[in-house]
Amino acid sequence: MTREQLFTNIQRKRSFLCVGLDTDLKKVPACIMEKAQKDTAFAPIFEFNRAIIDATAPYCVAYKPNLAFYEAFGVKGWVAFERTVQYIRAHYPDQFIIADAKRGDIGNTSALYARTFFETVDVDAVTVAPYMGEDSVTPFLGYAGKWVILLALTSNKGSHDFQLTEDTAGERLFERVLRRSQTWAGADSLMYVVGATQGAAFADIRRIVPDHFLLVPGIGAQGGSLEEVCRHGMNAQCGLIVNSSRAIIYADATERFADVAAERAREVQQQMAAQLDAKGI
Amino acid sequence: MTREQLFTNIQRKRSFLCVGLDTDLKKVPACIMEKAQKDTAFAPIFEFNRAIIDATAPYCVAYKPNLAFYEAFGVKGWVAFERTVQYIRAHYPDQFIIADAKRGDIGNTSALYARTFFETVDVDAVTVAPYMGEDSVTPFLGYAGKWVILLALTSNKGSHDFQLTEDTAGERLFERVLRRSQTWAGADSLMYVVGATQGAAFADIRRIVPDHFLLVPGIGAQGGSLEEVCRHGMNAQCGLIVNSSRAIIYADATERFADVAAERAREVQQQMAAQLDAKGI
Repeated sequence: MTREQLFTNIQRKRSFLCVGLDTDLKKVPACIMEKAQKDTAFAPIFEFNRAIIDATAPYCVAYKPNLAFYEAFGVKGWVAFERTVQYIRAHYPDQFIIADAKRGDIGNTSALYARTFFETVDVDAVTVAPYMGEDSVTPFLGYAGKWVILLALTSNKGSHDFQLTEDTAGERLFERVLRRSQTWAGADSLMYVVGATQGAAFADIRRIVPDHFLLVPGIGAQGGSLEEVCRHGMNAQCGLIVNSSRAIIYADATERFADVAAERAREVQQQMAAQLDAKGI
Repeated sequence: MTREQLFTNIQRKRSFLCVGLDTDLKKVPACIMEKAQKDTAFAPIFEFNRAIIDATAPYCVAYKPNLAFYEAFGVKGWVAFERTVQYIRAHYPDQFIIADAKRGDIGNTSALYARTFFETVDVDAVTVAPYMGEDSVTPFLGYAGKWVILLALTSNKGSHDFQLTEDTAGERLFERVLRRSQTWAGADSLMYVVGATQGAAFADIRRIVPDHFLLVPGIGAQGGSLEEVCRHGMNAQCGLIVNSSRAIIYADATERFADVAAERAREVQQQMAAQLDAKGI
Protein backbone atom coordinates (compact mmCIF):
# COMPACT_ATOMS: atom_id res chain seq x y z
CA MET A 1 0.00 0.00 0.00
CA THR A 2 1.32 3.45 -0.87
CA ARG A 3 1.42 6.38 1.50
CA GLU A 4 -1.26 8.13 -0.58
CA GLN A 5 -3.58 5.12 -0.35
CA LEU A 6 -3.10 4.96 3.40
CA PHE A 7 -3.85 8.67 3.76
CA THR A 8 -6.93 8.35 1.54
CA ASN A 9 -8.22 5.53 3.75
CA ILE A 10 -7.67 7.66 6.86
CA GLN A 11 -9.58 10.58 5.33
CA ARG A 12 -12.44 8.40 4.12
CA LYS A 13 -12.88 6.38 7.31
CA ARG A 14 -12.16 9.34 9.65
CA SER A 15 -9.88 7.01 11.58
CA PHE A 16 -6.21 6.27 12.08
CA LEU A 17 -6.86 3.35 14.39
CA CYS A 18 -4.89 0.12 14.20
CA VAL A 19 -6.41 -2.83 16.03
CA GLY A 20 -3.71 -4.99 17.59
CA LEU A 21 -4.47 -8.68 17.19
CA ASP A 22 -2.58 -9.81 20.31
CA THR A 23 -4.66 -12.94 20.55
CA ASP A 24 -3.96 -14.93 23.70
CA LEU A 25 -6.02 -18.07 24.29
CA LYS A 26 -5.75 -17.40 28.03
CA LYS A 27 -7.73 -14.18 27.52
CA VAL A 28 -10.29 -14.93 24.80
CA PRO A 29 -13.93 -15.38 25.93
CA ALA A 30 -14.91 -18.76 27.39
CA CYS A 31 -17.40 -19.30 24.55
CA ILE A 32 -14.51 -19.45 22.06
CA MET A 33 -12.66 -22.10 24.04
CA GLU A 34 -15.85 -24.10 24.63
CA LYS A 35 -16.49 -24.27 20.88
CA ALA A 36 -12.89 -25.38 20.31
CA GLN A 37 -13.30 -28.19 22.85
CA LYS A 38 -16.51 -29.47 21.26
CA ASP A 39 -15.27 -29.18 17.68
CA THR A 40 -11.63 -29.98 16.93
CA ALA A 41 -11.96 -28.34 13.49
CA PHE A 42 -12.74 -24.99 15.17
CA ALA A 43 -9.49 -22.99 15.28
CA PRO A 44 -9.87 -20.68 18.28
CA ILE A 45 -7.16 -18.08 17.50
CA PHE A 46 -8.30 -17.57 13.93
CA GLU A 47 -12.01 -17.63 14.79
CA PHE A 48 -11.55 -15.06 17.55
CA ASN A 49 -9.60 -12.87 15.11
CA ARG A 50 -12.24 -13.25 12.42
CA ALA A 51 -14.99 -12.12 14.78
CA ILE A 52 -12.92 -9.14 15.96
CA ILE A 53 -11.97 -8.17 12.39
CA ASP A 54 -15.55 -8.36 11.08
CA ALA A 55 -16.72 -6.26 14.01
CA THR A 56 -14.01 -3.57 13.95
CA ALA A 57 -13.16 -3.20 10.24
CA PRO A 58 -15.47 -0.17 9.71
CA TYR A 59 -13.64 1.78 12.42
CA CYS A 60 -9.96 1.11 11.71
CA VAL A 61 -7.46 1.40 8.87
CA ALA A 62 -4.95 -1.21 10.00
CA TYR A 63 -4.51 -4.52 11.81
CA LYS A 64 -1.38 -5.49 13.69
CA PRO A 65 -0.94 -9.14 14.64
CA ASN A 66 1.95 -9.43 17.10
CA LEU A 67 3.95 -12.49 16.14
CA ALA A 68 4.80 -13.39 19.73
CA PHE A 69 1.19 -14.33 20.38
CA TYR A 70 1.14 -16.69 17.40
CA GLU A 71 4.60 -18.21 17.79
CA ALA A 72 3.73 -19.12 21.38
CA PHE A 73 1.54 -21.83 19.86
CA GLY A 74 4.26 -23.03 17.51
CA VAL A 75 3.08 -24.43 14.20
CA LYS A 76 -0.62 -23.99 15.07
CA GLY A 77 0.07 -20.35 15.83
CA TRP A 78 1.73 -19.79 12.45
CA VAL A 79 -1.24 -21.36 10.72
CA ALA A 80 -3.52 -18.95 12.60
CA PHE A 81 -1.29 -15.99 11.68
CA GLU A 82 -1.27 -16.86 7.97
CA ARG A 83 -5.04 -17.51 7.92
CA THR A 84 -5.66 -14.19 9.66
CA VAL A 85 -3.62 -12.27 7.10
CA GLN A 86 -5.32 -14.11 4.22
CA TYR A 87 -8.74 -13.36 5.71
CA ILE A 88 -8.04 -9.63 6.00
CA ARG A 89 -6.63 -9.51 2.45
CA ALA A 90 -9.65 -11.33 1.00
CA HIS A 91 -12.40 -9.44 2.84
CA TYR A 92 -10.94 -6.05 3.72
CA PRO A 93 -8.37 -5.24 1.02
CA ASP A 94 -8.12 -1.59 2.11
CA GLN A 95 -6.69 -2.53 5.52
CA PHE A 96 -2.97 -1.98 6.14
CA ILE A 97 -1.52 -5.14 7.71
CA ILE A 98 1.44 -4.82 10.07
CA ALA A 99 3.39 -7.87 11.22
CA ASP A 100 4.64 -6.74 14.62
CA ALA A 101 7.69 -8.95 14.68
CA LYS A 102 10.56 -6.67 15.77
CA ARG A 103 13.02 -8.58 13.59
CA GLY A 104 16.53 -7.59 12.51
CA ASP A 105 19.70 -9.59 11.78
CA ILE A 106 22.75 -9.50 9.51
CA GLY A 107 21.99 -8.73 5.85
CA ASN A 108 21.45 -12.19 4.36
CA THR A 109 19.31 -13.15 7.34
CA SER A 110 17.18 -10.00 7.33
CA ALA A 111 16.62 -10.70 3.62
CA LEU A 112 15.02 -13.99 4.62
CA TYR A 113 12.81 -12.31 7.22
CA ALA A 114 11.76 -9.88 4.47
CA ARG A 115 10.92 -12.83 2.23
CA THR A 116 8.86 -14.34 5.06
CA PHE A 117 6.71 -11.29 5.68
CA PHE A 118 6.49 -9.77 2.20
CA GLU A 119 6.33 -12.94 0.07
CA THR A 120 5.42 -16.05 2.10
CA VAL A 121 2.95 -14.02 4.17
CA ASP A 122 1.86 -10.94 2.27
CA VAL A 123 1.67 -8.17 4.89
CA ASP A 124 2.20 -4.45 4.19
CA ALA A 125 4.69 -3.66 6.93
CA VAL A 126 6.97 -5.27 9.47
CA THR A 127 8.41 -3.78 12.65
CA VAL A 128 12.22 -3.92 12.78
CA ALA A 129 14.69 -3.33 15.65
CA PRO A 130 17.55 -0.95 14.76
CA TYR A 131 20.33 -2.23 17.06
CA MET A 132 22.26 -4.02 14.29
CA GLY A 133 22.28 -0.99 11.98
CA GLU A 134 21.85 -0.27 8.30
CA ASP A 135 22.45 -3.65 6.69
CA SER A 136 19.99 -5.29 9.10
CA VAL A 137 17.23 -2.93 7.93
CA THR A 138 17.81 -2.28 4.22
CA PRO A 139 16.93 -5.83 3.03
CA PHE A 140 13.33 -5.08 4.08
CA LEU A 141 13.30 -1.93 1.92
CA GLY A 142 13.51 -3.50 -1.53
CA TYR A 143 9.79 -4.27 -1.92
CA ALA A 144 7.48 -1.84 -3.75
CA GLY A 145 4.54 -0.78 -1.60
CA LYS A 146 5.96 -2.47 1.51
CA TRP A 147 7.11 -0.76 4.67
CA VAL A 148 9.65 -0.99 7.46
CA ILE A 149 8.44 0.34 10.80
CA LEU A 150 11.63 0.94 12.74
CA LEU A 151 11.67 1.01 16.54
CA ALA A 152 12.59 4.51 17.67
CA LEU A 153 11.20 5.35 21.12
CA THR A 154 9.12 2.55 22.56
CA SER A 155 6.30 2.69 25.10
CA ASN A 156 7.85 0.56 27.84
CA LYS A 157 9.87 1.44 30.94
CA GLY A 158 12.97 -0.19 29.42
CA SER A 159 12.98 2.46 26.69
CA HIS A 160 14.96 4.55 29.23
CA ASP A 161 17.81 2.02 29.41
CA PHE A 162 19.36 2.71 26.02
CA GLN A 163 17.05 4.73 23.75
CA LEU A 164 17.42 7.93 25.81
CA THR A 165 21.20 7.69 26.21
CA GLU A 166 22.82 10.90 24.99
CA ASP A 167 25.94 10.68 22.85
CA THR A 168 28.93 13.00 22.78
CA ALA A 169 27.19 15.16 20.12
CA GLY A 170 24.21 15.68 22.44
CA GLU A 171 21.97 13.35 20.46
CA ARG A 172 19.89 10.66 22.16
CA LEU A 173 20.01 7.15 20.68
CA PHE A 174 16.42 7.26 19.37
CA GLU A 175 17.22 10.58 17.66
CA ARG A 176 20.31 9.05 16.08
CA VAL A 177 18.16 6.16 14.83
CA LEU A 178 15.67 8.62 13.31
CA ARG A 179 18.36 10.73 11.68
CA ARG A 180 20.61 7.99 10.30
CA SER A 181 17.78 5.80 9.02
CA GLN A 182 16.55 8.65 6.83
CA THR A 183 19.60 8.05 4.63
CA TRP A 184 18.36 4.47 4.07
CA ALA A 185 14.83 5.28 2.84
CA GLY A 186 12.25 8.03 2.72
CA ALA A 187 8.79 8.61 4.13
CA ASP A 188 7.24 6.42 1.43
CA SER A 189 8.65 3.17 2.80
CA LEU A 190 9.78 3.90 6.36
CA MET A 191 7.74 4.58 9.49
CA TYR A 192 8.78 4.68 13.14
CA VAL A 193 7.44 3.17 16.36
CA VAL A 194 6.94 5.86 19.01
CA GLY A 195 5.12 4.90 22.21
CA ALA A 196 2.07 6.93 23.22
CA THR A 197 3.54 7.14 26.72
CA GLN A 198 6.37 9.36 25.41
CA GLY A 199 4.13 12.50 25.16
CA ALA A 200 6.63 15.36 25.20
CA ALA A 201 9.17 13.57 22.99
CA PHE A 202 6.75 13.67 20.03
CA ALA A 203 7.64 17.31 19.39
CA ASP A 204 11.36 16.45 19.32
CA ILE A 205 10.64 13.56 16.98
CA ARG A 206 8.60 15.71 14.59
CA ARG A 207 11.52 18.10 14.31
CA ILE A 208 13.62 15.24 12.87
CA VAL A 209 10.95 13.39 10.87
CA PRO A 210 8.18 15.88 10.05
CA ASP A 211 6.68 13.82 7.21
CA HIS A 212 6.94 10.18 8.29
CA PHE A 213 4.09 8.10 9.61
CA LEU A 214 4.51 7.06 13.24
CA LEU A 215 3.05 3.83 14.58
CA VAL A 216 1.96 4.62 18.11
CA PRO A 217 1.28 1.82 20.59
CA GLY A 218 0.53 2.40 24.24
CA ILE A 219 -2.94 3.99 24.11
CA GLY A 220 -5.34 2.32 26.55
CA ALA A 221 -3.87 -0.46 28.68
CA GLN A 222 -0.42 1.17 28.71
CA GLY A 223 -1.77 4.60 29.68
CA GLY A 224 -0.95 6.90 26.74
CA SER A 225 -3.23 9.82 25.81
CA LEU A 226 -4.66 10.16 22.30
CA GLU A 227 -5.05 13.92 22.65
CA GLU A 228 -1.43 14.43 23.65
CA VAL A 229 -0.17 12.19 20.85
CA CYS A 230 -2.22 14.16 18.30
CA ARG A 231 -1.24 17.55 19.70
CA HIS A 232 2.50 16.87 19.30
CA GLY A 233 2.57 14.15 16.66
CA MET A 234 -0.05 14.81 13.96
CA ASN A 235 1.08 16.32 10.66
CA ALA A 236 -0.78 17.58 7.58
CA GLN A 237 -1.28 14.03 6.28
CA CYS A 238 -2.21 12.74 9.73
CA GLY A 239 1.13 10.94 10.02
CA LEU A 240 -0.15 8.71 12.82
CA ILE A 241 -1.35 5.15 13.08
CA VAL A 242 -2.45 4.66 16.67
CA ASN A 243 -2.69 1.10 17.93
CA SER A 244 -5.01 -0.29 20.54
CA SER A 245 -5.00 -3.97 21.38
CA ARG A 246 -6.21 -5.15 24.77
CA ALA A 247 -8.64 -2.27 25.38
CA ILE A 248 -10.57 -3.27 22.25
CA ILE A 249 -10.19 -7.00 21.69
CA TYR A 250 -10.65 -8.00 25.35
CA ALA A 251 -13.24 -5.33 26.21
CA ASP A 252 -15.80 -8.04 26.97
CA ALA A 253 -15.52 -11.71 27.92
CA THR A 254 -19.06 -12.86 27.07
CA GLU A 255 -20.63 -14.01 23.81
CA ARG A 256 -21.10 -10.31 23.01
CA PHE A 257 -17.30 -9.77 22.85
CA ALA A 258 -17.27 -8.82 19.16
CA ASP A 259 -20.11 -6.32 19.53
CA VAL A 260 -18.41 -4.69 22.51
CA ALA A 261 -15.09 -4.60 20.60
CA ALA A 262 -16.92 -2.80 17.78
CA GLU A 263 -18.37 -0.28 20.27
CA ARG A 264 -14.92 0.41 21.75
CA ALA A 265 -13.34 0.74 18.29
CA ARG A 266 -16.14 3.13 17.26
CA GLU A 267 -15.57 5.26 20.36
CA VAL A 268 -11.87 5.57 19.51
CA GLN A 269 -12.72 6.27 15.86
CA GLN A 270 -15.00 9.12 16.90
CA GLN A 271 -12.28 10.66 19.05
CA MET A 272 -9.95 10.34 16.06
CA ALA A 273 -12.48 11.93 13.71
CA ALA A 274 -12.64 14.92 16.06
CA GLN A 275 -8.86 15.21 15.96
CA LEU A 276 -8.81 15.03 12.16
CA ASP A 277 -11.59 17.63 11.96
CA ALA A 278 -9.71 19.96 14.28
CA LYS A 279 -6.66 19.68 12.02
CA GLY A 280 -8.74 20.21 8.86
CA ILE A 281 -7.86 16.78 7.43
CA MET B 1 21.72 -26.81 30.65
CA THR B 2 23.85 -25.31 33.41
CA ARG B 3 27.11 -23.44 32.87
CA GLU B 4 29.00 -26.31 34.52
CA GLN B 5 27.43 -28.87 32.17
CA LEU B 6 28.34 -26.73 29.17
CA PHE B 7 31.93 -26.38 30.36
CA THR B 8 32.17 -30.13 31.03
CA ASN B 9 31.00 -30.83 27.47
CA ILE B 10 33.61 -28.43 26.11
CA GLN B 11 36.40 -30.11 28.10
CA ARG B 12 35.30 -33.61 27.16
CA LYS B 13 34.79 -32.96 23.44
CA ARG B 14 37.77 -30.56 23.13
CA SER B 15 35.49 -28.25 21.20
CA PHE B 16 33.52 -25.06 21.65
CA LEU B 17 32.05 -25.20 18.16
CA CYS B 18 28.44 -24.33 17.45
CA VAL B 19 27.12 -25.43 14.08
CA GLY B 20 24.70 -22.88 12.66
CA LEU B 21 21.73 -24.54 11.01
CA ASP B 22 21.02 -21.72 8.52
CA THR B 23 19.26 -24.09 6.17
CA ASP B 24 18.32 -22.47 2.89
CA LEU B 25 16.66 -24.66 0.27
CA LYS B 26 18.34 -22.53 -2.41
CA LYS B 27 21.72 -23.73 -1.13
CA VAL B 28 21.24 -27.36 -0.09
CA PRO B 29 22.70 -30.04 -2.40
CA ALA B 30 20.69 -30.95 -5.49
CA CYS B 31 20.30 -34.54 -4.24
CA ILE B 32 18.19 -33.27 -1.32
CA MET B 33 15.82 -31.36 -3.58
CA GLU B 34 15.60 -34.27 -6.03
CA LYS B 35 14.50 -36.61 -3.24
CA ALA B 36 11.91 -34.05 -2.14
CA GLN B 37 10.51 -33.85 -5.67
CA LYS B 38 10.20 -37.62 -6.00
CA ASP B 39 8.77 -38.18 -2.53
CA THR B 40 6.37 -35.58 -1.13
CA ALA B 41 6.76 -37.11 2.36
CA PHE B 42 10.48 -36.25 2.29
CA ALA B 43 10.93 -32.98 4.22
CA PRO B 44 14.05 -31.36 2.72
CA ILE B 45 14.90 -28.83 5.47
CA PHE B 46 14.62 -31.36 8.26
CA GLU B 47 16.36 -34.14 6.32
CA PHE B 48 19.28 -31.87 5.40
CA ASN B 49 19.56 -30.84 9.06
CA ARG B 50 19.42 -34.44 10.25
CA ALA B 51 22.28 -35.44 7.94
CA ILE B 52 24.36 -32.44 9.04
CA ILE B 53 23.64 -33.08 12.74
CA ASP B 54 24.50 -36.79 12.55
CA ALA B 55 27.74 -35.94 10.76
CA THR B 56 28.90 -33.05 12.94
CA ALA B 57 27.67 -33.98 16.45
CA PRO B 58 31.01 -35.51 17.55
CA TYR B 59 32.83 -32.24 16.83
CA CYS B 60 30.52 -29.58 18.30
CA VAL B 61 28.84 -28.72 21.59
CA ALA B 62 25.95 -26.65 20.25
CA TYR B 63 23.55 -26.15 17.36
CA LYS B 64 22.06 -22.83 16.37
CA PRO B 65 19.08 -22.83 14.04
CA ASN B 66 18.47 -19.28 12.81
CA LEU B 67 14.72 -18.72 12.81
CA ALA B 68 14.79 -16.50 9.71
CA PHE B 69 15.66 -19.49 7.57
CA TYR B 70 12.69 -21.46 8.90
CA GLU B 71 10.12 -18.67 8.99
CA ALA B 72 10.86 -17.95 5.33
CA PHE B 73 8.93 -21.15 4.60
CA GLY B 74 6.04 -20.20 6.86
CA VAL B 75 4.23 -23.08 8.53
CA LYS B 76 6.41 -25.72 6.82
CA GLY B 77 9.49 -23.95 8.12
CA TRP B 78 8.18 -23.98 11.69
CA VAL B 79 7.49 -27.70 11.40
CA ALA B 80 11.09 -28.21 10.26
CA PHE B 81 12.41 -26.07 13.13
CA GLU B 82 10.44 -27.99 15.76
CA ARG B 83 11.40 -31.38 14.29
CA THR B 84 15.06 -30.33 14.20
CA VAL B 85 15.04 -29.36 17.88
CA GLN B 86 13.22 -32.57 18.82
CA TYR B 87 15.74 -34.63 16.84
CA ILE B 88 18.74 -33.05 18.57
CA ARG B 89 17.10 -33.46 22.00
CA ALA B 90 16.31 -37.15 21.36
CA HIS B 91 19.61 -38.21 19.83
CA TYR B 92 22.21 -35.78 21.17
CA PRO B 93 20.98 -34.68 24.61
CA ASP B 94 24.35 -33.12 25.51
CA GLN B 95 24.07 -30.51 22.74
CA PHE B 96 23.24 -26.92 23.70
CA ILE B 97 20.47 -25.66 21.41
CA ILE B 98 20.32 -21.96 20.58
CA ALA B 99 17.30 -20.44 18.85
CA ASP B 100 18.86 -17.52 16.98
CA ALA B 101 15.75 -15.39 16.89
CA LYS B 102 16.90 -11.93 18.01
CA ARG B 103 13.55 -11.27 19.70
CA GLY B 104 12.62 -8.56 22.20
CA ASP B 105 9.40 -6.66 22.90
CA ILE B 106 7.50 -5.10 25.81
CA GLY B 107 7.27 -7.28 28.91
CA ASN B 108 4.04 -9.21 28.35
CA THR B 109 5.06 -9.88 24.74
CA SER B 110 8.62 -10.98 25.53
CA ALA B 111 7.03 -13.35 28.08
CA LEU B 112 5.19 -15.00 25.19
CA TYR B 113 8.37 -15.29 23.12
CA ALA B 114 9.99 -16.92 26.16
CA ARG B 115 7.08 -19.36 26.36
CA THR B 116 7.54 -20.13 22.64
CA PHE B 117 11.22 -20.98 22.86
CA PHE B 118 11.48 -22.47 26.35
CA GLU B 119 8.13 -24.32 26.57
CA THR B 120 6.50 -24.86 23.15
CA VAL B 121 9.92 -25.53 21.59
CA ASP B 122 12.38 -26.65 24.25
CA VAL B 123 15.67 -24.96 23.35
CA ASP B 124 18.41 -23.99 25.83
CA ALA B 125 18.96 -20.40 24.77
CA VAL B 126 17.50 -17.63 22.68
CA THR B 127 19.21 -14.57 21.22
CA VAL B 128 17.59 -11.28 22.29
CA ALA B 129 18.02 -7.70 21.01
CA PRO B 130 18.63 -5.13 23.79
CA TYR B 131 17.15 -1.98 22.20
CA MET B 132 13.93 -2.03 24.26
CA GLY B 133 15.78 -2.41 27.58
CA GLU B 134 15.34 -4.32 30.81
CA ASP B 135 11.68 -5.33 30.75
CA SER B 136 12.07 -6.67 27.20
CA VAL B 137 14.82 -9.06 28.35
CA THR B 138 13.94 -10.16 31.90
CA PRO B 139 10.87 -12.26 30.92
CA PHE B 140 13.31 -14.66 29.25
CA LEU B 141 15.31 -15.00 32.48
CA GLY B 142 12.77 -16.79 34.66
CA TYR B 143 13.49 -20.32 33.40
CA ALA B 144 15.91 -22.60 35.29
CA GLY B 145 18.71 -23.86 33.08
CA LYS B 146 17.70 -21.57 30.20
CA TRP B 147 19.72 -18.72 28.78
CA VAL B 148 19.41 -15.30 27.21
CA ILE B 149 22.13 -14.48 24.68
CA LEU B 150 21.98 -10.71 24.40
CA LEU B 151 23.25 -8.87 21.34
CA ALA B 152 26.25 -6.78 22.35
CA LEU B 153 28.65 -6.15 19.44
CA THR B 154 27.56 -7.89 16.27
CA SER B 155 29.66 -9.08 13.33
CA ASN B 156 28.09 -6.96 10.58
CA LYS B 157 29.02 -3.59 9.11
CA GLY B 158 25.89 -2.02 10.60
CA SER B 159 27.28 -2.66 14.09
CA HIS B 160 29.06 0.67 13.63
CA ASP B 161 25.83 2.62 13.22
CA PHE B 162 24.68 2.51 16.84
CA GLN B 163 26.61 -0.07 18.89
CA LEU B 164 29.85 1.95 18.82
CA THR B 165 28.24 5.30 19.61
CA GLU B 166 29.94 6.83 22.63
CA ASP B 167 27.80 8.45 25.32
CA THR B 168 28.54 11.50 27.45
CA ALA B 169 30.23 9.28 30.06
CA GLY B 170 32.63 7.91 27.42
CA GLU B 171 30.89 4.55 27.23
CA ARG B 172 30.00 2.98 23.90
CA LEU B 173 26.48 1.57 23.51
CA PHE B 174 27.61 -2.07 23.47
CA GLU B 175 29.55 -1.44 26.69
CA ARG B 176 26.48 0.12 28.26
CA VAL B 177 24.46 -2.97 27.25
CA LEU B 178 27.08 -5.25 28.83
CA ARG B 179 27.25 -3.24 32.03
CA ARG B 180 23.56 -2.59 32.62
CA SER B 181 22.43 -6.08 31.73
CA GLN B 182 24.64 -7.51 34.46
CA THR B 183 22.19 -6.07 36.98
CA TRP B 184 19.45 -8.20 35.36
CA ALA B 185 21.15 -11.61 35.59
CA GLY B 186 24.51 -13.26 36.16
CA ALA B 187 26.88 -15.42 34.14
CA ASP B 188 24.74 -18.50 34.83
CA SER B 189 21.84 -17.38 32.65
CA LEU B 190 23.17 -14.60 30.44
CA MET B 191 25.61 -14.73 27.51
CA TYR B 192 26.45 -12.10 24.90
CA VAL B 193 26.76 -12.09 21.12
CA VAL B 194 30.12 -10.68 20.03
CA GLY B 195 31.09 -10.95 16.37
CA ALA B 196 34.38 -12.64 15.49
CA THR B 197 35.11 -9.70 13.20
CA GLN B 198 35.42 -7.38 16.24
CA GLY B 199 38.93 -8.67 17.16
CA ALA B 200 40.38 -5.90 19.30
CA ALA B 201 37.10 -5.16 21.09
CA PHE B 202 37.19 -8.59 22.79
CA ALA B 203 39.73 -7.30 25.30
CA ASP B 204 37.47 -4.33 26.16
CA ILE B 205 34.53 -6.70 26.50
CA ARG B 206 36.42 -9.07 28.81
CA ARG B 207 37.19 -6.18 31.13
CA ILE B 208 33.43 -5.70 31.64
CA VAL B 209 32.28 -9.33 31.54
CA PRO B 210 35.26 -11.53 32.48
CA ASP B 211 33.18 -14.60 33.37
CA HIS B 212 30.32 -14.70 30.87
CA PHE B 213 30.12 -16.98 27.89
CA LEU B 214 30.24 -15.17 24.55
CA LEU B 215 28.51 -16.52 21.47
CA VAL B 216 30.78 -15.63 18.57
CA PRO B 217 29.47 -15.69 15.00
CA GLY B 218 31.48 -14.49 12.02
CA ILE B 219 34.20 -17.15 11.75
CA GLY B 220 34.53 -18.44 8.19
CA ALA B 221 32.26 -16.83 5.60
CA GLN B 222 32.27 -13.48 7.46
CA GLY B 223 36.07 -13.43 7.83
CA GLY B 224 36.73 -13.56 11.59
CA SER B 225 39.85 -15.28 12.99
CA LEU B 226 39.56 -18.07 15.59
CA GLU B 227 43.06 -17.38 16.93
CA GLU B 228 42.35 -13.71 17.51
CA VAL B 229 39.01 -14.45 19.18
CA CYS B 230 40.69 -16.94 21.52
CA ARG B 231 43.65 -14.67 22.29
CA HIS B 232 41.42 -11.84 23.51
CA GLY B 233 38.20 -13.62 24.43
CA MET B 234 38.95 -16.97 26.10
CA ASN B 235 38.71 -17.21 29.89
CA ALA B 236 39.54 -19.96 32.40
CA GLN B 237 36.29 -21.78 31.65
CA CYS B 238 36.70 -21.26 27.90
CA GLY B 239 33.89 -18.69 27.90
CA LEU B 240 33.42 -18.98 24.16
CA ILE B 241 30.94 -20.69 21.87
CA VAL B 242 32.13 -20.06 18.34
CA ASN B 243 29.61 -20.47 15.56
CA SER B 244 30.21 -21.55 12.00
CA SER B 245 27.34 -21.97 9.58
CA ARG B 246 27.92 -21.68 5.85
CA ALA B 247 31.58 -22.82 5.91
CA ILE B 248 30.47 -26.15 7.38
CA ILE B 249 26.96 -26.94 6.22
CA TYR B 250 27.49 -25.84 2.60
CA ALA B 251 31.10 -27.05 2.30
CA ASP B 252 30.07 -29.50 -0.43
CA ALA B 253 27.14 -29.65 -2.84
CA THR B 254 27.31 -33.32 -3.82
CA GLU B 255 25.90 -36.46 -2.20
CA ARG B 256 28.98 -36.39 0.05
CA PHE B 257 27.86 -33.11 1.67
CA ALA B 258 27.45 -34.59 5.15
CA ASP B 259 30.86 -36.28 5.10
CA VAL B 260 32.53 -33.07 3.97
CA ALA B 261 30.64 -31.10 6.64
CA ALA B 262 32.00 -33.57 9.21
CA GLU B 263 35.53 -33.07 7.89
CA ARG B 264 35.21 -29.28 8.11
CA ALA B 265 33.73 -29.47 11.62
CA ARG B 266 36.55 -31.81 12.68
CA GLU B 267 39.17 -29.39 11.32
CA VAL B 268 37.66 -26.55 13.36
CA GLN B 269 37.40 -28.84 16.41
CA GLN B 270 41.10 -29.65 16.16
CA GLN B 271 42.01 -25.97 16.00
CA MET B 272 39.84 -25.45 19.06
CA ALA B 273 41.45 -28.37 20.91
CA ALA B 274 44.83 -26.72 20.34
CA GLN B 275 43.50 -23.45 21.78
CA LEU B 276 42.10 -25.25 24.84
CA ASP B 277 45.38 -27.14 25.32
CA ALA B 278 47.36 -23.92 25.12
CA LYS B 279 45.16 -22.43 27.84
CA GLY B 280 45.44 -25.59 30.00
CA ILE B 281 41.70 -26.26 29.86
